[in-house]
Amino acid sequence: MTTFPDHALATALTLVTDLFDRLGAATADPPGITRASYGEGEVIAQGLLSEVARGLGMEVTTDAVGTLRMVLPGRDRSLPAVTMGSHLDSVPHGGNFDGAAGVIMGLGIAAALHAAGRAPHRDLLVLGIRAEEMCWFPAHYLGSRALFGLLPKDAPDTLRRVDTGRTLAEHMAAEGLDPAPIRAGRALLDPARIACFIEPHIEQGPVLVEEGLPVAVVSGIRGSLRYPQASAHGAHAHAGAVPRRHRRDAAMATVALIAALDARWSRLEASGADLVCTTGILATDPALHTSTKIPGVVRFSLDIRSQDAALLAELDDWLAAEAARIGAARGVTFDFGPPTHAAPALMDPGLRALLVRSAANAGVKAREMASGAGHDSATFAGLGIPTVMLFLRNEHGSHNPDEALDMADVGAGLAVLVPAVAELLG
Amino acid sequence: MTTFPDHALATALTLVTDLFDRLGAATADPPGITRASYGEGEVIAQGLLSEVARGLGMEVTTDAVGTLRMVLPGRDRSLPAVTMGSHLDSVPHGGNFDGAAGVIMGLGIAAALHAAGRAPHRDLLVLGIRAEEMCWFPAHYLGSRALFGLLPKDAPDTLRRVDTGRTLAEHMAAEGLDPAPIRAGRALLDPARIACFIEPHIEQGPVLVEEGLPVAVVSGIRGSLRYPQASAHGAHAHAGAVPRRHRRDAAMATVALIAALDARWSRLEASGADLVCTTGILATDPALHTSTKIPGVVRFSLDIRSQDAALLAELDDWLAAEAARIGAARGVTFDFGPPTHAAPALMDPGLRALLVRSAANAGVKAREMASGAGHDSATFAGLGIPTVMLFLRNEHGSHNPDEALDMADVGAGLAVLVPAVAELLG
Repeated sequence: MTTFPDHALATALTLVTDLFDRLGAATADPPGITRASYGEGEVIAQGLLSEVARGLGMEVTTDAVGTLRMVLPGRDRSLPAVTMGSHLDSVPHGGNFDGAAGVIMGLGIAAALHAAGRAPHRDLLVLGIRAEEMCWFPAHYLGSRALFGLLPKDAPDTLRRVDTGRTLAEHMAAEGLDPAPIRAGRALLDPARIACFIEPHIEQGPVLVEEGLPVAVVSGIRGSLRYPQASAHGAHAHAGAVPRRHRRDAAMATVALIAALDARWSRLEASGADLVCTTGILATDPALHTSTKIPGVVRFSLDIRSQDAALLAELDDWLAAEAARIGAARGVTFDFGPPTHAAPALMDPGLRALLVRSAANAGVKAREMASGAGHDSATFAGLGIPTVMLFLRNEHGSHNPDEALDMADVGAGLAVLVPAVAELLG
Repeated sequence: MTTFPDHALATALTLVTDLFDRLGAATADPPGITRASYGEGEVIAQGLLSEVARGLGMEVTTDAVGTLRMVLPGRDRSLPAVTMGSHLDSVPHGGNFDGAAGVIMGLGIAAALHAAGRAPHRDLLVLGIRAEEMCWFPAHYLGSRALFGLLPKDAPDTLRRVDTGRTLAEHMAAEGLDPAPIRAGRALLDPARIACFIEPHIEQGPVLVEEGLPVAVVSGIRGSLRYPQASAHGAHAHAGAVPRRHRRDAAMATVALIAALDARWSRLEASGADLVCTTGILATDPALHTSTKIPGVVRFSLDIRSQDAALLAELDDWLAAEAARIGAARGVTFDFGPPTHAAPALMDPGLRALLVRSAANAGVKAREMASGAGHDSATFAGLGIPTVMLFLRNEHGSHNPDEALDMADVGAGLAVLVPAVAELLG
């Protein structure tokens, strides 16, 4: 792996730091920033980044679904491009880094190549993807799936933005974009034209902060098994007058099921399995519950994530059997409601090894870890495109104004990525 | 034990059946009946019962706090009275039997004595007690505690009826009653003038229905240890991105605590302990919870009841230790909030034995069992008055329009009580 001149990395970090500052100021919405999907903040971000990209000699276009494409031309334009990027939207009053870091660091890498006077063999394509945050339109990876013609064909007309009530088609029309390719299921970018996809992203959990590491190479994006609307049905009764054997206590049955899942999770993790389990919603009925009444109904949610699709399937079977067993023992019926499944997306072993090697080369401490949250990378990996993510240390989680990405860690990320991308570009 | 002529029992059952019908019709409020504490339904009930009592040669008075007192005079008026009764109020849209059964059966026993031509040695005092249902005024055993001067002295002015917002004093004044004895903490009935207290009451749980028994002799009224406003405090975080060891999951910690209590309850019951445990409220925050977020806060309630005061105290200590242990292991803090305690009230062994013997004598199948709900009998037992309750089989629980007391079971109850009360009266 070739080393890169320090001044080129310093130039890249200065550009990136400046761009974060300007983007944060331009999309400020105290507390935090707001960049709505197919909204004003995305357009502002695209304008800012386009201007910088042109200054670096990049070709800048926007496609029919609004993806910002910035190309540092290679010597052989016929080769598939090394592709980077992430999304430019944010949650309302979110932080400045979730999503945008991946696009801005793509430009940082272009700037480093530019400053070092390197003329890459292949194109470097940096994507500013639309609409990844599900809080605006209720669909996973909306922007990257639109780019590849993977959305349901009725999506422009059935998906409505939560805050405005207007359809995706209406929001696209307001920007002069064209929903026709989505309606036709047509890809606007040929996966065969993408050599690989690299998505830098802030870590949304506390692992890197806790472990004192600036970056991590992502091993895979966890898939999920979710029952957002599960419930347990027993019988309301007097808290004092009904003996244990006569109870049909929906709360105690739900507690038994979740405790059993927690115990199984603990054992599986001890044996090395990748797994997280969450009950985000756990609720007796506010209209009926009192402290002196056995609850007849409890609503709850289950969110189970793993990189291991077989483990998720096995846990789904186990849950059904366990619920039947507990229900029978306690006179309670479980209704899990409709499930949602997302397949795990494994990152490319070759790209993972390249980033691990590059980190070691640059003297940057790193680990490998799973991503518990979904990312546009799952769309690329799902198409068979070799994909990898680099997580950057970030305090206070994401989707809030307190996201904190230290520019020193961005520097560490650039020190890992610039030589690796240069090697991929040839 | 002397046997009683069948015609006297038949006369009593006819009177009781008729009185239930008339009371239900007079206080109907579909679905079910309503007899508010210090409200219209209680006054209607008192009028109806007074008229019947006078027809049986009883002396009828109402005291300053509104207790209806009906006395079948004995030959020696100087002796303490054998006392019976229960409360006449109900929950809104409740059933016709919770409370009223105890007063009406007292009149039934007077009717049986009257029909058999027995002149008792002592007075038989039948009480129609006020305000036992806590849904109107938020105080336990309001009517019986008022009778014995046991309420807080400020109760007339601080307790407000939930539906009207008016104070107890205002409601009493509207009926021409006098809150002065409550304000002075003065007893209106001298416990020394009560030889014993017997309270017939419908069972509020399913035990007698399930076991095919018409009646049960109550061994004791369970005391309670309650934490109506407990909560667990961890940290909200991303459901996918935070590994198990970094979580501060308020829901999983609460589940672990309640599951531990449930397991301990199961073991204690297997070893013969009297115990019921209920979490009636279990709630993540509706303003913050989603299925994809680790809950940072969970509200819950604990309601633990037993006849064994030492066991309640032991469980209270155990809960504190278990919460500390689970909290430390899971990064969660438990706040149990203010507790409420009610001491268990044991029924008098001599009276229990008398009723068991009388049931055997009358060929009525019976068992002994604890009362999980509180009753006015707890006030009497707490004053050292020998007290016992007789439960009557009842379908569908209580505090709802579907309470179902079969008049055949009332007949069985009278067959047990009439000879027993006659023996006590001498």
